[in-house]
Amino acid sequence: MRIYDIIEDKRNKKALSQEQIDFWIKGVVDKSVADYQSAALLMAIAINGMTDEETYYLTKAMADSGDKADLSAYGDRTVDKHSSGGVGDSTSFIVIPVMSALGKVCAKMSGRGLGHTGGTLDKLEAIEGVSTSLSEEKFYAQLNRTGLVIAGQTKDICPADKILYALRDVTATVESIPLIASSIMSKKLAAGAKNIVLDVKCGKGAFMHDEESAEKLAKLMVETGKRAGRNVSALITDMDEPLSDYIGNSLEVEGAVKVLEGKTDCPLYEVAKALCVTLLGYEGAEKDVDEAVKSGAALNKFRELLIEQGAAEDVLEKPLVRAKCKIEVFADSSGYVQSIDAMKAARTVLALGGGRNRKEDEILPHVGIKYNVRRGDKVEEDDLLATMYFDRYEDVAYAMDVKNSVKISDSKPVEKSRIIKIIK
Amino acid sequence: MRIYDIIEDKRNKKALSQEQIDFWIKGVVDKSVADYQSAALLMAIAINGMTDEETYYLTKAMADSGDKADLSAYGDRTVDKHSSGGVGDSTSFIVIPVMSALGKVCAKMSGRGLGHTGGTLDKLEAIEGVSTSLSEEKFYAQLNRTGLVIAGQTKDICPADKILYALRDVTATVESIPLIASSIMSKKLAAGAKNIVLDVKCGKGAFMHDEESAEKLAKLMVETGKRAGRNVSALITDMDEPLSDYIGNSLEVEGAVKVLEGKTDCPLYEVAKALCVTLLGYEGAEKDVDEAVKSGAALNKFRELLIEQGAAEDVLEKPLVRAKCKIEVFADSSGYVQSIDAMKAARTVLALGGGRNRKEDEILPHVGIKYNVRRGDKVEEDDLLATMYFDRYEDVAYAMDVKNSVKISDSKPVEKSRIIKIIK
Repeated sequence: MRIYDIIEDKRNKKALSQEQIDFWIKGVVDKSVADYQSAALLMAIAINGMTDEETYYLTKAMADSGDKADLSAYGDRTVDKHSSGGVGDSTSFIVIPVMSALGKVCAKMSGRGLGHTGGTLDKLEAIEGVSTSLSEEKFYAQLNRTGLVIAGQTKDICPADKILYALRDVTATVESIPLIASSIMSKKLAAGAKNIVLDVKCGKGAFMHDEESAEKLAKLMVETGKRAGRNVSALITDMDEPLSDYIGNSLEVEGAVKVLEGKTDCPLYEVAKALCVTLLGYEGAEKDVDEAVKSGAALNKFRELLIEQGAAEDVLEKPLVRAKCKIEVFADSSGYVQSIDAMKAARTVLALGGGRNRKEDEILPHVGIKYNVRRGDKVEEDDLLATMYFDRYEDVAYAMDVKNSVKISDSKPVEKSRIIKIIK
Repeated sequence: MRIYDIIEDKRNKKALSQEQIDFWIKGVVDKSVADYQSAALLMAIAINGMTDEETYYLTKAMADSGDKADLSAYGDRTVDKHSSGGVGDSTSFIVIPVMSALGKVCAKMSGRGLGHTGGTLDKLEAIEGVSTSLSEEKFYAQLNRTGLVIAGQTKDICPADKILYALRDVTATVESIPLIASSIMSKKLAAGAKNIVLDVKCGKGAFMHDEESAEKLAKLMVETGKRAGRNVSALITDMDEPLSDYIGNSLEVEGAVKVLEGKTDCPLYEVAKALCVTLLGYEGAEKDVDEAVKSGAALNKFRELLIEQGAAEDVLEKPLVRAKCKIEVFADSSGYVQSIDAMKAARTVLALGGGRNRKEDEILPHVGIKYNVRRGDKVEEDDLLATMYFDRYEDVAYAMDVKNSVKISDSKPVEKSRIIKIIK
């Protein structure tokens, strides 16, 4: 077998066999396939596509390219969630504690933020004392003791995906549904959970701007996971507006804690609850999820996780957000909040130092935005719209961007659910 | 400008601007564009194509990427030819001497053979004493003195094309009409001649198997050359059968010499003459070409070239082909020669050591095949079909392949001209 022929087949729109895909991925890891050959093949895939079967083979080959988590000791109780990246998305800090409170086992391996989307690890580490770099021993010990853990990869998970993702990032081949699906699902398969729920974001603040592409991606990932023997389902959720009122690293943890403390009348809980219910999958699951929050059981699980990973015992009794400065922005006019521009909000947080432009950038964990209004709210002139938290005094000028991210107009916008579709 | 956006534009089927193409090619040479990025862009071009305008921009950018020959001192008398690669194609050794005998100036830069096609430089160097590695000084001195020279590149011609060709060769992006056209034409533009004739081969022994692709390529190259201010025309010629009875390095020189000595009743002269006539482009050119051969003027020019480049004065009075062994193959049955398989013949010569599988391979200059019959000839059982020349005794077994390359059957095949089309 020669990589040349594999590239040529895909160039000529042929479906690749499992043997061909295995040969490629093995070559990616052992470097017998050169970067430029993978780049050419990735471009041919990006343009000519892949069948569902090829996508499964690629996913499986990447999942098998490195170490895999072994959660077999927990049987069918293992759950995992994945979000395709949005703005103000801290559902993990609700879903994982709730599922854990309901007896599920959650060993979540997360990533760092890049560009306009935040990373779960950065958010958790914004809390004083918390670490997400756990040794393999610590990872499994915590899981055994508490049933939940959120950390970076403990071992060399999906090395082929790491190499190919870095290549795609510089060769304009990121936007390809089979490549996105296989990249996400390979990591989920290697992470070992039996039950997986995917949150595919769709809208102005997401990678997928239109519903059709989001649905294609969601269906392909569900199909791929099922072929690999996992219970996978997906939500397509709206990401035109930020999901939470809180955007920024420690701010998003605070937002999740508010929900766990009972402030559940918000889109963040709407989506988190739907993810939990979809994972549980039985009649009456909704009630159990509500009860896990109302009883404080989920909050206790989250506190347990924070403390296990290094936070002080009284972590939730002290302020989580510790930015040096804050500034409030007010409405210029009366009317209804027509929209809050998720992308503008995310870019502002990035500019404040709360995100990374490049992988090696350091972040400022406490900067960000807390919105006081949501889409559809009625506001009067001079009402508080939002508070901007920042560390560098010169960044005060970004307050204008925060203000401009809230669009006010006379007519009340049509109400809409965050949940666009559920795919099982 | 960012290479990422250029790749993305081509991925999305957009036409690239001259500025974008210049940026890419500059980056290829100064290494600011990585190989994997060029590989992705080449694949996007191979799949999504290029307009004629883009092809011209790419050709020009590559021609301008390095040194260029300056033939301005010779005005409009400069001529050049290019063949897209066939089997037994030694037309250069006829066209260049004839054109030179008719007062034209021919500074031909040629290449080495790879795979099933031979290289002009390898063929010339198969003649004892002849060198094609000339210093720039020697190149121009010979040109001034004699009006003809055939050599390797004296300077750094089209470095961008060298880099991209090497990449295409390992990423399945060789077969792309705009990429082939720009690669060939960039070198022709940099080589400096005002008048250029292209011989685009078509058939079983050529890169282009069908007439439609050959015509597309020919038209695109003619159009590109004209945009750059050159007089360019092209022949599409048939390459189902070998062009000459002689296949192999020194053998092909011998085949050309036979023609120059007056044995002009053969396809090799038919094509060589058509190339000359097309280059000359005036009424009555045919007569002048025939006369240049008949008078011995062209043979004298070829002898002059060989001697200038290192051969002995009596080079053409001694045998040119000096293989260690030869074996004759005979007809098993009577009938007509239905076809001679050009690709089979070429692969046999390659197996005998007369060609290269990889660039660094050494070749055996005297091995090859001399056919005694041509398509359409009537043969009787036991008639001589061909003589195989070889250097390694164990290669004698390839004689069977030589024999099998000649297909004999009862019916006489329809006569056909080698010249399929002329594009001006």
